[in-house]
Amino acid sequence: MEKRIYFDWAASAPFHEIINITPFGNPSSLHKEGRLAKEALENARTECAALLKVPPQTLYFTSGGTESNSIALFSNLMRPGKGRIISSLAEHASIREGMQTLEKMGKPIGSITVDSLSRVTADTLSKALDKYNDIRFVTAMSVNNETGAITDIPSLIKVIRSQNGAPIHFHCDLVQAIGKIPVDISGWDIDSASISAHKLSGPRGIGLLYLRKPLEVFYTGGGQENGIRGGTENTQGAASFAKALTYHNNIDENYAKANSRWNRLITALKEIDRCTIIPADRAANDERFSPYILQAAFKNIPGEVMARALDDLGFAVSTGSACSSSSPERPVLTAMGIEENLRIEGIRISQGYETSDEDIELLLEAINKVLTFL
Amino acid sequence: MEKRIYFDWAASAPFHEIINITPFGNPSSLHKEGRLAKEALENARTECAALLKVPPQTLYFTSGGTESNSIALFSNLMRPGKGRIISSLAEHASIREGMQTLEKMGKPIGSITVDSLSRVTADTLSKALDKYNDIRFVTAMSVNNETGAITDIPSLIKVIRSQNGAPIHFHCDLVQAIGKIPVDISGWDIDSASISAHKLSGPRGIGLLYLRKPLEVFYTGGGQENGIRGGTENTQGAASFAKALTYHNNIDENYAKANSRWNRLITALKEIDRCTIIPADRAANDERFSPYILQAAFKNIPGEVMARALDDLGFAVSTGSACSSSSPERPVLTAMGIEENLRIEGIRISQGYETSDEDIELLLEAINKVLTFL
Repeated sequence: MEKRIYFDWAASAPFHEIINITPFGNPSSLHKEGRLAKEALENARTECAALLKVPPQTLYFTSGGTESNSIALFSNLMRPGKGRIISSLAEHASIREGMQTLEKMGKPIGSITVDSLSRVTADTLSKALDKYNDIRFVTAMSVNNETGAITDIPSLIKVIRSQNGAPIHFHCDLVQAIGKIPVDISGWDIDSASISAHKLSGPRGIGLLYLRKPLEVFYTGGGQENGIRGGTENTQGAASFAKALTYHNNIDENYAKANSRWNRLITALKEIDRCTIIPADRAANDERFSPYILQAAFKNIPGEVMARALDDLGFAVSTGSACSSSSPERPVLTAMGIEENLRIEGIRISQGYETSDEDIELLLEAINKVLTFL
Repeated sequence: MEKRIYFDWAASAPFHEIINITPFGNPSSLHKEGRLAKEALENARTECAALLKVPPQTLYFTSGGTESNSIALFSNLMRPGKGRIISSLAEHASIREGMQTLEKMGKPIGSITVDSLSRVTADTLSKALDKYNDIRFVTAMSVNNETGAITDIPSLIKVIRSQNGAPIHFHCDLVQAIGKIPVDISGWDIDSASISAHKLSGPRGIGLLYLRKPLEVFYTGGGQENGIRGGTENTQGAASFAKALTYHNNIDENYAKANSRWNRLITALKEIDRCTIIPADRAANDERFSPYILQAAFKNIPGEVMARALDDLGFAVSTGSACSSSSPERPVLTAMGIEENLRIEGIRISQGYETSDEDIELLLEAINKVLTFL
């Protein structure tokens, strides 16, 4: 069989395990089958809560990161008044498109600019907060899914909590952060956050929404998940999610290894004349970035062409986010001020806990090979 | 191990299979892993489409029946104008609660009464249509999830299509119908419909939404499923769903067996003085009902007590819908005019393709045993 090396972990990670042996009953049923299913579901919630260091009752199982983001975002429609919602210009499509829907529904919205690294900073957030006096909801991601840039969430929350006036809800997309960099949901005083299982080698169709306090939500259903998310609970998915989080609990050790591999990759890419790391001042050992994601451009080779050439050689890389692969626009790169030719040429390389040192060397060889004929 | 006999198939069916061997890639990714995942997803869609006799491009994978209902229902918020949405009084919680949210959002709503069997009829629908002149969306379920009553969907659509004025969208909740009774989505001229995998022994967290034509939807995301449903596609769930539909394709043979078992159950229950079938005029071999669901009441025994007593004897039955198990209200039974004591005493017995003749005899013995001491 053809050897394949996977460098698109930020899109989806290879499955580790799907737990099929959970009880099949409907957790809302009162009979034994239902009670066993409920117990399995609550055990999964408790395990996830322990790993995330939050109270179990603050975690709600959803169908994935996109839905978790949507539930938090659209809860704004249920709040009385005209509170403004602002989001960073570097958010995932589920937030970006949700904002457009909120605007169509008559909600005032606004944006937060990002710095040249694609991060929201205390400064860019303050400017957005100064611009409007009716902000009630702020959303910004932790690790950017296209560049790996890490936004300093505690610094943003400090700015938010120091505002006068009505309290502001802070929502954080943690999809590319959990299991990869140290995150302290409770300690950082986040109001709500999104996590996805399949980015952590868990199954598809299961995500978590953290809510410090319950919200009035827009979509309802049968009252499952304490009324936050309707639909029969995905017990198997929840149990597998808990396992996936457990595998990713060894963050420091995995980080050190990932960082070492990424240093090698970044150092070698910087030696290639035609390669520009995006942003250009990202260095090896650069703590401003997650060592799981890298954006790079190769002169005169459109990102799609590069990705296809590497694919032919057995390597899976992507251009931007998989969720935006049908669109040629690169809003995150635009927001950080990357010039057009680099936006067109950018590819995203992302690794996971199974990536090896050898994989990095083989990728570098393959890139150099492509550069000789393109 | 304790012997258990499961009579709550309408809440969730025992898992048959979860397909773990589907490619793990993100179907939106352009590399080989992504293309293989996309292929698996589209194969699953094509298989489901063939079994449901609809074009593959009319089927959208969702996270389940509740979400499918919500997507269809909330698409009304994206339509210009003030078109009224009406739903039957016997719908599932996901529709019932969604209607309340639509009303909160300023949409005019209305209801369709049901007959004493819990069915919408051409007559009750006509009355609702005559009451308002701004109706643009009608939703009614096929098989009622609490009584098994079958609404004659084609007769409703005939009424709808004969209306003058702007076209009316007809949405149908097929969750308890697909794989159980003959359904002809295209032939009946349904505009949209919901199906869930886990009621057919498929996994949790995967459903289908049929849309004759694409709708502008409320929740968005990364443009997956042709923009109808955001979030990384659940390839494994989709493949397992196709398998579950395949197992349930033998509708006539399964129906005949289920009907024979239900005839025995209904005939025997009717001989028990303290038992009232709900509705009372439901007979054995009654084609107005699905032979997979039965509602019955036992004099002076609250449904919850009966369910618990049977549970102790090893039988899983429910009171109402699992999705409403936290509420003592029985809106479906109320809508069909069942008096209060019978509503309190009602239990739901539901079977599946694995239920045996012996299971029915054992259930009858258990019921008779409970009646001797309660």
